[in-house]
Amino acid sequence: MTDYEHILVKTEGGTVRITMNRAARRNSLSFAHLTELLTAFRAAGDTDATGIVLAGAGPVFSAGHDFGDVAARDLVGVRALLRHCTDLMRTIESVPQVVIARVHGLATAAGCQLVASCDLAVAASSAGFALPGGKGGWFCHTPAVPVARSIGRKRLMEMALTGDVIPAGTALDWGLVNSVVPDDELDEAVDSLLARATKGSRASKALGKQTIYAQLDRPEADAYAIALEVMAAASQLPGAKEGMASFLQKRPPVWPD
Amino acid sequence: MTDYEHILVKTEGGTVRITMNRAARRNSLSFAHLTELLTAFRAAGDTDATGIVLAGAGPVFSAGHDFGDVAARDLVGVRALLRHCTDLMRTIESVPQVVIARVHGLATAAGCQLVASCDLAVAASSAGFALPGGKGGWFCHTPAVPVARSIGRKRLMEMALTGDVIPAGTALDWGLVNSVVPDDELDEAVDSLLARATKGSRASKALGKQTIYAQLDRPEADAYAIALEVMAAASQLPGAKEGMASFLQKRPPVWPD
Amino acid sequence: MTDYEHILVKTEGGTVRITMNRAARRNSLSFAHLTELLTAFRAAGDTDATGIVLAGAGPVFSAGHDFGDVAARDLVGVRALLRHCTDLMRTIESVPQVVIARVHGLATAAGCQLVASCDLAVAASSAGFALPGGKGGWFCHTPAVPVARSIGRKRLMEMALTGDVIPAGTALDWGLVNSVVPDDELDEAVDSLLARATKGSRASKALGKQTIYAQLDRPEADAYAIALEVMAAASQLPGAKEGMASFLQKRPPVWPD
Repeated sequence: MTDYEHILVKTEGGTVRITMNRAARRNSLSFAHLTELLTAFRAAGDTDATGIVLAGAGPVFSAGHDFGDVAARDLVGVRALLRHCTDLMRTIESVPQVVIARVHGLATAAGCQLVASCDLAVAASSAGFALPGGKGGWFCHTPAVPVARSIGRKRLMEMALTGDVIPAGTALDWGLVNSVVPDDELDEAVDSLLARATKGSRASKALGKQTIYAQLDRPEADAYAIALEVMAAASQLPGAKEGMASFLQKRPPVWPD
Repeated sequence: MTDYEHILVKTEGGTVRITMNRAARRNSLSFAHLTELLTAFRAAGDTDATGIVLAGAGPVFSAGHDFGDVAARDLVGVRALLRHCTDLMRTIESVPQVVIARVHGLATAAGCQLVASCDLAVAASSAGFALPGGKGGWFCHTPAVPVARSIGRKRLMEMALTGDVIPAGTALDWGLVNSVVPDDELDEAVDSLLARATKGSRASKALGKQTIYAQLDRPEADAYAIALEVMAAASQLPGAKEGMASFLQKRPPVWPD
Repeated sequence: MTDYEHILVKTEGGTVRITMNRAARRNSLSFAHLTELLTAFRAAGDTDATGIVLAGAGPVFSAGHDFGDVAARDLVGVRALLRHCTDLMRTIESVPQVVIARVHGLATAAGCQLVASCDLAVAASSAGFALPGGKGGWFCHTPAVPVARSIGRKRLMEMALTGDVIPAGTALDWGLVNSVVPDDELDEAVDSLLARATKGSRASKALGKQTIYAQLDRPEADAYAIALEVMAAASQLPGAKEGMASFLQKRPPVWPD
């Protein structure tokens, strides 16, 4: 286990739990914090875990960038910070595990981007979501990328232009999160969704989520060109062979991976 | 009328009704079944019918691919099967008729993809939808293409990763189907929506649906480049001329096509 | 103040109010009307106003193209008209102000496209929305471009193929508008949303909305490539510097723009 300063990492069963642990700074994403999250996600990605839960310690999930770490940077410095942040978001999408955000309190700016970048998200009913950058002088340009791809265009504009906090129920209606539960049932709901999302063949689901991100937001013909080749190749993998054989032989599957 | 083994095709009024008829195999999509569906859609596309209804006989709409037809295939063979399947999905989008899915029971994997690929869909309230491939060892990579383009990203991930059945009401909330009705009103609701969707100029709607599929999922400037040229050209067609003339002359239109 | 024939333009506080004023022609978009709207939006874009409200005088918001102005045109003429119309739609997206549609009565065809093209939209509860072109012989090809990008694919197909009017509540559920209020509270609701959407740094929000339109509908990697560079550059602007400084110094910001 790596020695982290800003996060906690715990592995139990097939699940890696990564918890942002800068409560005093509202889990804001300094360069050092981003580095640890990136390291932890990459390390988890190399394990045989099936799921990753991303959570935050303290009163909020994450407040986004740490202005104390941004304000003094010049263009080259901010660009490096944003590339680091974008690497984290895209790493979450590329690891083979199912990644769930466990959202409580507030998820704002790059914190809201984290929620949008996880494969799945469960929110406490008291949680809120916001893209306050425009209001604050530095627009949430990169957070708007995955948020736009989860909710509609008019709703994105409302979040990004007003900066107002939208409640968990609205986030559910708009498709930013998968479920909303009473605050004291949050852990249970996260584990329940993760169990549903990780049952079956690990290799199949890993290739599945990675291919979905590859085909999204492309003209349908391009998307099919990608998905079809992956699906044809995947049919020859041990998991697919076993899945079909067990189905046809009416017996439970024994996953090879 | 062609002699089909796996499907039923009936034409009445301006509607071609194509019914998957492999009830004992849950209307699964073997190569032979796909071939007949493709033949029937292409044949219907060449007629002057205005609408096509796709339905399934027996307990479910369609269970997707027929593992009995997949398991023995090598990579080249599965690739050919998936290309055949993708051809069917894209043919549904390219025929000039309005295509409606009449969904009852279950629509799973490529069966759910069929629903997403039809222009419109009406579901019985007891119907369910699932992408169970990930759970079963062979991820629903190609079904995820049109399903992703109907519902949001988080919802797609939930369907594709959990493989769980979502009920008709949820499919309606998410935009996978256009309406949900009591089971015994399904045929009536399908015919009612089809009547609304096919009134007016057949040629205009044919060009309309084809152009929509061409411009979707592209940057807006690219989409406008396509839609604008089609719309300018379409203004010179007899249907458009008659539509505008009848409007300006305050008389009912007489469609030339 | 320019002398307009078809529209009213009034500036008060930081808001430019542009009102389509061809009530007798249901605010239909003749070439001359489009020209005035385009001129007014470009002129407003060059001011230091923070918001623009687009409204319609008389019984409806806008009925779309003016068939009296279309019917006599040949291909070249219609193409010029549609390019003019598309220029207006894209100008609404590119001006630095937050643009809100104030929708009452009906917004049909290119009138519905106007609603979809504004950054935000508030509708009276009695308002309705339709894409009736397919029914009328000249399909709403270009209106379907921004409408498709606001609502889902199945819902777009339903609007475009049936041509039926969808009520305001449905438009809200589908994400075509941001809120629906009782008819006599429409102005108040528009002003309230505009106030929320324009508070804070004007320059930041201008760059924000423009960048959102640039990154939408692109593969995520392409979208990030755009958003990241803009966000890095924006960090060095006076507004961002002041926003971060005031936050870190726990004082109210003084916006430089």
